[in-house]
Amino acid sequence: MNFLDEIKNLKEQLKSTDKFDVNFNFNNIVITGMGGSGIVGNIFQEYYANIPVISIGDYGIPSFVNEKTLFIAVSYSGNTEETIDNVEDAKKKGAHVRAITSGGKLATIVENPIIIPSGLQPRSALGYMLMPLFNTFSAFSEDDVNEAYNVLNDMDKNHDEMKSQAFKIYENSYIPIIYGSKPFKSVAYRWKTQFNENAKTFAFYSYFPELNHNDTMPLKSAYRIKEYLFYAFESDNARINQRINITEEITGEQFTIIKSPTSNYFAKLFYLIHYADYLTYELALVRNVDPTDVSTIEELKKKLA
Amino acid sequence: MNFLDEIKNLKEQLKSTDKFDVNFNFNNIVITGMGGSGIVGNIFQEYYANIPVISIGDYGIPSFVNEKTLFIAVSYSGNTEETIDNVEDAKKKGAHVRAITSGGKLATIVENPIIIPSGLQPRSALGYMLMPLFNTFSAFSEDDVNEAYNVLNDMDKNHDEMKSQAFKIYENSYIPIIYGSKPFKSVAYRWKTQFNENAKTFAFYSYFPELNHNDTMPLKSAYRIKEYLFYAFESDNARINQRINITEEITGEQFTIIKSPTSNYFAKLFYLIHYADYLTYELALVRNVDPTDVSTIEELKKKLA
Repeated sequence: MNFLDEIKNLKEQLKSTDKFDVNFNFNNIVITGMGGSGIVGNIFQEYYANIPVISIGDYGIPSFVNEKTLFIAVSYSGNTEETIDNVEDAKKKGAHVRAITSGGKLATIVENPIIIPSGLQPRSALGYMLMPLFNTFSAFSEDDVNEAYNVLNDMDKNHDEMKSQAFKIYENSYIPIIYGSKPFKSVAYRWKTQFNENAKTFAFYSYFPELNHNDTMPLKSAYRIKEYLFYAFESDNARINQRINITEEITGEQFTIIKSPTSNYFAKLFYLIHYADYLTYELALVRNVDPTDVSTIEELKKKLA
Repeated sequence: MNFLDEIKNLKEQLKSTDKFDVNFNFNNIVITGMGGSGIVGNIFQEYYANIPVISIGDYGIPSFVNEKTLFIAVSYSGNTEETIDNVEDAKKKGAHVRAITSGGKLATIVENPIIIPSGLQPRSALGYMLMPLFNTFSAFSEDDVNEAYNVLNDMDKNHDEMKSQAFKIYENSYIPIIYGSKPFKSVAYRWKTQFNENAKTFAFYSYFPELNHNDTMPLKSAYRIKEYLFYAFESDNARINQRINITEEITGEQFTIIKSPTSNYFAKLFYLIHYADYLTYELALVRNVDPTDVSTIEELKKKLA
């Protein structure tokens, strides 16, 4: 599958019916993963709060993990060093360990893993990795899934807006800064990583209202400010939109506001994700870099092995 | 107190004996705060994991919050909109609400708040805000406190290294990128916010090993890379130091490594915090900006009110 086909595959991934059997008592959920797999835990943590959910992306697990913990490891390759390390720790603590992976070592050390299709770039398998969590903890309706499917399908047919954004970034050698807000702070981070991996540019992120307590100062007066392009997501929370407007007004900086064509949470989540898929893919093309190339990351893994 | 005296005051704050009475059952801790007060929850969450600790910096509280939650609000001014909003929500859910503040509305709506000295910039009161948490949950020994005091005192006498770093940033109009690592990821974020508020420059952060899954790509080849200065904290974890070295080797970028003169966690935490206090203070001076000026943030609060 070429990379454009991988991007277009996202809408099909929403149809996944994979789910975990969680028919036992647990007091908290710990999700672990790195990079393109780690974002899964961040999105889920931001969405689900009926019990404490801790998303980790690091060596070592929290000391509270025990037999009352549902411990979910997400690694597309199944061989992520940090994640394997976490699973071994969690098993020693007696946690209920589950896994989402396309194979690798993870599939062999965790019972009944959810096996998702292999052969994609990990960052192109976000739907496959996320749906089992949604299906297990808060199934979306068929209407939600259809709405999201249609929104993604429209983008797959026409993404001129993202192409034009990409050209603007390319022309000016902009560094994107993405300001997310609840419940899409983690999506702002996804944008950052897509810029890094697909387009090989730096990108940074923060969120409203937190940035009003720090970034707002340099937004008014910092050197190099004209080298950045600022994105913000339109919010359903009027107070957040007010903060965006007032921040623009008092700093004199204009943000590029990303508006979603839908108000459905599930569809909006995937719209915002897919926006950056196309934006960063198009930026790679216009920059003449290969969006699939992550050779530096692979080289690092080899040297660490 | 002038700003330099505020910085020098940090070592005295370590002597705080404030603590909470937590003589009741709770299953989780939620800490809330924004900006210079919010970092307190992030540092504590990274340190303490005997039970789930969730640090929030936003409107709205997790739905799991109930009468088994210890809910701690940190706001230096006591009037932070988001934090007051959180406290009102937490009280409705029956949580045990505690507060750390110098006064304001927070001191009036939470019983028995820990009242810390007023008159400082919130970001200069980090010791006062953090110590009650440490004292309550994992008291450090007198030796730990003395070690940290001495380390800070040495920096107060001589911070030529930070002054020279500040001049290097100034001369090149660098944008600092700080790569933290456990248990000091939150300190990398503190550095970022100190650059923003004191020096009025942009700054960004990430952490090892996560950045090896994304930032590593642009580190090899991004445009504008020479406009950034990269910091990394030397780690006690050999694997992290290896990652730092290999990342430098394969990307060709040099990181400025911050080494601590102590291996004591408590002293190292405050050394790394204080390093950025001086670095950003000196950068403000050489840039001829007022490190105490946060007028843009204040103006925004007024317009939002």
